Amino acid sequence: MAAKQRGPGGKVPASAGYFGKHREGGRPPEPRRSKPINPAFAGGFWLYGLHTARAALLNPRRKVRRALLTDRAASELGSAVRGVPVDTVLPEAISRLLPQGAVHQGAALYCEPLPGLDLEEVLRAVPAGGRIVAVLDQVTDPHNEGAILRSAAAFGVAAVIVQDRHAPPESGALAKAASGGLDIVPRIEVVNIARALEELGRLGFWRIALSGDGEGPLRDAAPKGDVAIALGAEGSGLRRLVRERCDASAFIPLGRAMDSLNVSNAAAIAFYELSRDRSQFLAR
Amino acid sequence: MAAKQRGPGGKVPASAGYFGKHREGGRPPEPRRSKPINPAFAGGFWLYGLHTARAALLNPRRKVRRALLTDRAASELGSAVRGVPVDTVLPEAISRLLPQGAVHQGAALYCEPLPGLDLEEVLRAVPAGGRIVAVLDQVTDPHNEGAILRSAAAFGVAAVIVQDRHAPPESGALAKAASGGLDIVPRIEVVNIARALEELGRLGFWRIALSGDGEGPLRDAAPKGDVAIALGAEGSGLRRLVRERCDASAFIPLGRAMDSLNVSNAAAIAFYELSRDRSQFLAR
Repeated sequence: MAAKQRGPGGKVPASAGYFGKHREGGRPPEPRRSKPINPAFAGGFWLYGLHTARAALLNPRRKVRRALLTDRAASELGSAVRGVPVDTVLPEAISRLLPQGAVHQGAALYCEPLPGLDLEEVLRAVPAGGRIVAVLDQVTDPHNEGAILRSAAAFGVAAVIVQDRHAPPESGALAKAASGGLDIVPRIEVVNIARALEELGRLGFWRIALSGDGEGPLRDAAPKGDVAIALGAEGSGLRRLVRERCDASAFIPLGRAMDSLNVSNAAAIAFYELSRDRSQFLAR
Repeated sequence: MAAKQRGPGGKVPASAGYFGKHREGGRPPEPRRSKPINPAFAGGFWLYGLHTARAALLNPRRKVRRALLTDRAASELGSAVRGVPVDTVLPEAISRLLPQGAVHQGAALYCEPLPGLDLEEVLRAVPAGGRIVAVLDQVTDPHNEGAILRSAAAFGVAAVIVQDRHAPPESGALAKAASGGLDIVPRIEVVNIARALEELGRLGFWRIALSGDGEGPLRDAAPKGDVAIALGAEGSGLRRLVRERCDASAFIPLGRAMDSLNVSNAAAIAFYELSRDRSQFLAR
């Protein structure tokens, strides 16, 4: 979409050569195409928005190379930016770096993608018995995956598993839709979704495939204990090989007029339903 | 976003002068800026996508002026297009009319916005006692409202009420996100949201304001009977005047890590929870 004007994932082209030599509150220099690639702005991407920026700054695993903040955003973020080089800029300087219409609220961070995570290690850090894991099979839209990460964070989901080749890369749009969730919920990229489901089975997870033609309603499909919920792409749904690795299949009861939900809405309902009896992760 | 390149709401500029004089399967003529405005393409907008097109064609209230279809889409839609002038075209001819990256699946309809609806009249057509009505207070993002319409259709919501000045206009992006929901669920534009809630109260609806600081969890807030759920914009939430017109407030229980959901995800959960005991609208 509009992001394409600036390269994939809202990246600023390396040739734009933005670097904050300007004074506080001043305008950044206009991009100069002939400038050599600045190593400070290669290999990473811009995160933006206050919630998103705060979560990234508070995530010890997230490497933030530079922050562009308005005075107001800087005071909102307070000590969270400690240790990060900050340029105080006008809002327009940030707008210029981002896809058209991006709501940045005066905060943009140039970040590195998060380092890879190991599923078993991540799960070991969460008490067994009430863990929820989401498995996304080829959900390729960054807004959908972002919204799923946001809901996952809200409902205490222990991990979100995606397939490296068929998931959107970390990007500003994904992070913004996640509203901080990208830096809160462990997002685990795996080579093979079916194999990840096998591993979850070995670890004692009850694996549910969410599908319109499932065996029964979701509310009856989840016994107590650790549970993994597999969600498929819109249109094509879960692939057969993925579905075969699950212990059960379930549907969300819908009326006759519409036979499917947006995948992030389906995920939100699944997390809501599954967290109902797994309330140790909820504050109230 | 990208739609801006073609005017608001994915409208094709009247000056583009697209009109199908080409033969079946042929390419449409290139837009010519100097051509006079064609009355067939003014005042309406392009709907696209197979689900969306089918729902529009099956909606007796929707005036479809023209259909651009690929051979494949035409055979998918079958007799639904009866009575509508059809141009059979190549996919690229449709892509050229729509925002960049729009997934049209070979189907685009030039439509008029739906005529206005009266709340009381709409509600009279649905048996009382288990009706759900959604009230959207300044949800301005067309993708969010679209996803809400889709979920509303899926969960048998009787009507979605929006404020005319603070809701996105009918557009291709809204309709696509709704995946047909825009032509299934009555969407009622009102001048004043607070007054619509007063009317719902007079009609016997129990009005719930969904808010993070609500009085109790949503599952305990909805007695049997007709219910209206008010959802606020992200960020600002429900306005005080709107909230004061409700009988109760309720929250969706979330953990500590994230204090809010995407508004379409919150709506999906609310419809799911409320439809639980109002199953006469659900097929199974």
